[in-house]
Amino acid sequence: MKRIDGRAKDQLRPVEIIPNINRFAEGSCLIKCGNTQVYITASVENRVPPHVPANEGWVTAEYNMLPRANRDRSRRDVSKLKLSGRSAEIQRLIGRSLRAAVDLKKLPGYQITIDCDVLQGDGGTRTASVTGGFVALALACRTLHKNGWIKENPIIHNVAAVSAGIVDNALLLDLRYEEDSNAMVDLNCVMTEEGKLIEIQGTGEGRPFDVEEQQKLVRYCAKGIGELIELQNRVLAEAER
Amino acid sequence: MKRIDGRAKDQLRPVEIIPNINRFAEGSCLIKCGNTQVYITASVENRVPPHVPANEGWVTAEYNMLPRANRDRSRRDVSKLKLSGRSAEIQRLIGRSLRAAVDLKKLPGYQITIDCDVLQGDGGTRTASVTGGFVALALACRTLHKNGWIKENPIIHNVAAVSAGIVDNALLLDLRYEEDSNAMVDLNCVMTEEGKLIEIQGTGEGRPFDVEEQQKLVRYCAKGIGELIELQNRVLAEAER
Amino acid sequence: MKRIDGRAKDQLRPVEIIPNINRFAEGSCLIKCGNTQVYITASVENRVPPHVPANEGWVTAEYNMLPRANRDRSRRDVSKLKLSGRSAEIQRLIGRSLRAAVDLKKLPGYQITIDCDVLQGDGGTRTASVTGGFVALALACRTLHKNGWIKENPIIHNVAAVSAGIVDNALLLDLRYEEDSNAMVDLNCVMTEEGKLIEIQGTGEGRPFDVEEQQKLVRYCAKGIGELIELQNRVLAEAER
Amino acid sequence: MKRIDGRAKDQLRPVEIIPNINRFAEGSCLIKCGNTQVYITASVENRVPPHVPANEGWVTAEYNMLPRANRDRSRRDVSKLKLSGRSAEIQRLIGRSLRAAVDLKKLPGYQITIDCDVLQGDGGTRTASVTGGFVALALACRTLHKNGWIKENPIIHNVAAVSAGIVDNALLLDLRYEEDSNAMVDLNCVMTEEGKLIEIQGTGEGRPFDVEEQQKLVRYCAKGIGELIELQNRVLAEAER
Amino acid sequence: MKRIDGRAKDQLRPVEIIPNINRFAEGSCLIKCGNTQVYITASVENRVPPHVPANEGWVTAEYNMLPRANRDRSRRDVSKLKLSGRSAEIQRLIGRSLRAAVDLKKLPGYQITIDCDVLQGDGGTRTASVTGGFVALALACRTLHKNGWIKENPIIHNVAAVSAGIVDNALLLDLRYEEDSNAMVDLNCVMTEEGKLIEIQGTGEGRPFDVEEQQKLVRYCAKGIGELIELQNRVLAEAER
Amino acid sequence: MKRIDGRAKDQLRPVEIIPNINRFAEGSCLIKCGNTQVYITASVENRVPPHVPANEGWVTAEYNMLPRANRDRSRRDVSKLKLSGRSAEIQRLIGRSLRAAVDLKKLPGYQITIDCDVLQGDGGTRTASVTGGFVALALACRTLHKNGWIKENPIIHNVAAVSAGIVDNALLLDLRYEEDSNAMVDLNCVMTEEGKLIEIQGTGEGRPFDVEEQQKLVRYCAKGIGELIELQNRVLAEAER
Repeated sequence: MKRIDGRAKDQLRPVEIIPNINRFAEGSCLIKCGNTQVYITASVENRVPPHVPANEGWVTAEYNMLPRANRDRSRRDVSKLKLSGRSAEIQRLIGRSLRAAVDLKKLPGYQITIDCDVLQGDGGTRTASVTGGFVALALACRTLHKNGWIKENPIIHNVAAVSAGIVDNALLLDLRYEEDSNAMVDLNCVMTEEGKLIEIQGTGEGRPFDVEEQQKLVRYCAKGIGELIELQNRVLAEAER
Repeated sequence: MKRIDGRAKDQLRPVEIIPNINRFAEGSCLIKCGNTQVYITASVENRVPPHVPANEGWVTAEYNMLPRANRDRSRRDVSKLKLSGRSAEIQRLIGRSLRAAVDLKKLPGYQITIDCDVLQGDGGTRTASVTGGFVALALACRTLHKNGWIKENPIIHNVAAVSAGIVDNALLLDLRYEEDSNAMVDLNCVMTEEGKLIEIQGTGEGRPFDVEEQQKLVRYCAKGIGELIELQNRVLAEAER
Repeated sequence: MKRIDGRAKDQLRPVEIIPNINRFAEGSCLIKCGNTQVYITASVENRVPPHVPANEGWVTAEYNMLPRANRDRSRRDVSKLKLSGRSAEIQRLIGRSLRAAVDLKKLPGYQITIDCDVLQGDGGTRTASVTGGFVALALACRTLHKNGWIKENPIIHNVAAVSAGIVDNALLLDLRYEEDSNAMVDLNCVMTEEGKLIEIQGTGEGRPFDVEEQQKLVRYCAKGIGELIELQNRVLAEAER
Repeated sequence: MKRIDGRAKDQLRPVEIIPNINRFAEGSCLIKCGNTQVYITASVENRVPPHVPANEGWVTAEYNMLPRANRDRSRRDVSKLKLSGRSAEIQRLIGRSLRAAVDLKKLPGYQITIDCDVLQGDGGTRTASVTGGFVALALACRTLHKNGWIKENPIIHNVAAVSAGIVDNALLLDLRYEEDSNAMVDLNCVMTEEGKLIEIQGTGEGRPFDVEEQQKLVRYCAKGIGELIELQNRVLAEAER
Repeated sequence: MKRIDGRAKDQLRPVEIIPNINRFAEGSCLIKCGNTQVYITASVENRVPPHVPANEGWVTAEYNMLPRANRDRSRRDVSKLKLSGRSAEIQRLIGRSLRAAVDLKKLPGYQITIDCDVLQGDGGTRTASVTGGFVALALACRTLHKNGWIKENPIIHNVAAVSAGIVDNALLLDLRYEEDSNAMVDLNCVMTEEGKLIEIQGTGEGRPFDVEEQQKLVRYCAKGIGELIELQNRVLAEAER
Repeated sequence: MKRIDGRAKDQLRPVEIIPNINRFAEGSCLIKCGNTQVYITASVENRVPPHVPANEGWVTAEYNMLPRANRDRSRRDVSKLKLSGRSAEIQRLIGRSLRAAVDLKKLPGYQITIDCDVLQGDGGTRTASVTGGFVALALACRTLHKNGWIKENPIIHNVAAVSAGIVDNALLLDLRYEEDSNAMVDLNCVMTEEGKLIEIQGTGEGRPFDVEEQQKLVRYCAKGIGELIELQNRVLAEAER
């Protein structure tokens, strides 16, 4: 089987991360994974939600598709007066993933909100949000540190994410829309730069999958995440200058 | 390390499934996993949502905690005018899992809604909802079949779920509340009777976890799910008589 | 005319109250009146709404039907983003009735919320909620008193409720669903153990009723409420041991 | 005890009903009971809700307080995104009461909505809404009949309402605000011109009340309602000319 | 072209302002412009929104159509769970206009809310709300001043509003409904007693309009506003006695 | 007085319009006016709202600020469960303006929705939305025409918008944020390529303004709009190739 865009089975789509895309946010980027584009800002606020222990900080995320991010226009959540279940699920995933990248004790009294607004969706919007969200978060932490508002940079390790799936019984990395909508199995991994898992979410919508297949999909993801973390570091290094 | 209730590391809590707990629903049960109790009904309706292809059916789920299911009373979603993000995430998981148990083509024109209302929550409410939800679903399919509304029973295979986690670096099956709230890693599996995966969701809230640990947690889950499916079958066989 | 279940005109359905059904709530019970089943918890919180005078407490109630409490599944209030008018009306009645059972000055700074979730509805869910709600409330007051959080037990007198109605021009006590849905007149009474009225609500949906009929329906209710209060006392006495 | 405005115990406040106050509505009036003022319109629409049998009509009501109807300004329901429980309860009462005044079979395919907007509230807004609502409803039925849209006038009998209560152990008819807010017992009756009950709602917020007291309050209400129905007829007769 | 009611092109409809129409509000009036009727109250509260500087006050407005203000009944905003966009736009205009009439520094710590509830709408409800809203506001300021709660009367100058438009290429002042719904161009002005502009809103729904036409429409409005301000002063002077 | 960025009083900020920024939308662009950036898509749908006459089409707009479009992060509308009054007002303005650019009879059965999502706001977001919205709309009409779905291009004339204001008594064109937030008077114009007005909205938040000033502000706007329409045409001509 040949992939629709000629990629190898374990090959990522072309990825680009443009840092500091928003002049007001403490950190921001635009991430493009193939035709998927997510506009991400990291906003620092001087207050934390009530459940956060004293002397700690918090990282949270919000996720939204613009109405024409998809092939068909979809109604805005506000016109339906509720956040879609899908958006709720995704923004909880992004928040948990990015909290795992920082030492919250080193952000005392600060909340960083990662806003992920999908401009174009072509598969993999949640994993692109995590990968780009890390860059926006790291830039915001740098701003906080440079301005002397925090003593140490709270970043522990890079975090990035990608999906893999089974389409027509073939295992493929980084599904684009046409592949994703035909996938029998779809699995997302969030990993650290050490290759450890932060989140794993797999679903056999088309058919159940055995443990061996699950393992192989994780290995595909690990390969892709390694490349994405290299890109994150390159972007962050250049943005520094 | 000893578990708080003396269980072995890979031992389930006592589980009980009381079928046909509701006299109106086409299928129903009360599932008790330790102190977790979920009241589940499966309701058949003669119409399907617009996205379902003609000549097919649909299975969906709704999940809700009663206000005093927890140690502290929580406000009802309706008084906040929105479904909590957590509930939205969980009911999507339950719905996907149970759809994987049936052949939707054999439910033409019918929608089965699995309502999972948590009476008491002590860890594992989402996995208990899947395990009990399968029993309610199977009973509803039986009702449909007996009444001659469908020609064949649409159940493909049993589906059940359980969690495993890492607490103080020990791997444990079926976490109860005190363990769950201290878990470094928490992983839920939904599997079929053939031991294949339908859903896997793991999160390293306390620390990242390596692929080996992940594999071991899946094996723990597989063991527990095997036992749960045996119980499902026993309950369904007895409910038949 | 014979009643569908053979009861005498002024006879209650079989009633059962199972106390302490929830391990977290300060007070709780499951009340079954025929096929009507309501799961009730009484939750104590350490704060009162703003309109409550200093040094006083408050008792309030919330009422909800589970989706499959009825012959047909009904949508959850949250999915309609509003509390149904019927639920609003009923929970206000329950709250007023139970406040009349306690001396709010003896609950300084505490709010007790009575959550009534109908598992199965077969007529008389609001009156069952009052009758069972009193038991949950009394158990919660006992917990507060035993723990030394309040000095005196604030319960003034038992409160219970039942309905009576006119079906085919026959006066009947404690209508079940088939009777209720055919009733020309429907009247609910909430009374104290001294036989005094707390609430009376009567409606002639099918035809107007004269004052004499109204009086007779109240006498029927008084008889039923006497028996329900005996049961409350028996349950509370046993729960003590 | 003397009443604050010198009325006899069983005396109504001055009542005025100004018919046809709105030039667009099929029926309308402004009712003033002392300082209570309710602006009422009856709107005919050519469609009925789904639960109404074919060849029948429907009557429903909506009730709302303007923000400054009270001594203090209250927030609009829309700014809280929900109808208050009190409004929900009241509009259900008005709807049931007015449906009892008409033969719905003689309104085939029409819905009449009675909108009751309280301009000033000084006690008795729900009963004023019923009494004035009947006038608006009767005027709308007349319009329908005159225009030949219905064959027979569907009005069966007049319906009116008033409250009585116990203040400082004295029984009083038609409580105004200062009396109402001090009432130990408050009872509303809706009655027909034949003196039969449509609705009775009594509540002992301050103390329980015995059956004898309840009877006496009903007699007070009956007297007041007789006078209100006379006024309705006078107003309707004059409006005809 | 003759106007439907025989008015000259630059002639207002008959206007009437009845002050102190509500006994609870600090200021109030009923304004009638032809068949348009708006019930207006000005409510003083002892607190200001967070964005207001210390030692200043605030003036805000809310606008609402009663369901049968129009030829057809419209649903209440609360039943749609949202304020209509039109209402939101109008109440912002009213608030801005009336804030321009007062020196907020002379209202330290007070918020005055102008509630405009349209009883009947026949064109020009927003401008009638501004014109009548000024009277209610001035009466409320007078109450505050008389009671000694503020030292100086904060009113700077009268403010009133009217519309003008182009119908069938004829320029007309103060459009009523039939004219308004056929207008090619519709322009509202809010002006001070010195003839200066506070707000101008013009829209060419039917065709674009040139700058000369726009000027002429403003002159028409200026004429009408002069007359309205005379009426405001007459009403306020009489209300004083 | 010198402007903060050295511009002449009647000089626009640098403007850039990047067409076809979204690969799914029938028309789209990114408009940058100084630091203001709006992401705009025009989506064609095959159905019109109920109020549209048969054989006509409709153009509507939605406007939204991304959470970090401003100096401080603002909460999403969906989390407040309502569209802000400001957004409601603005999207109604954009819709009316763009409808004036097309002959709706030449769009039979089609609705075009212009979504304006502000990525960065630095003053003038509503006028940038109109100016860029026209480009997206024109591109969508071209797509419809090219595909043969409509017979004639429905565009009548270009439409663009800009603001002018009075800051420290100086009249200035195209206010940026620092100017806008200090403006005494703020006026927006929407005009056609013939220099005729579609919309005019002026507000004297800081002080009233006289008719002469209003006229001069309109002339400033006319000059700016002329330049913006030239740019629109250049962009549309190049996008064609």
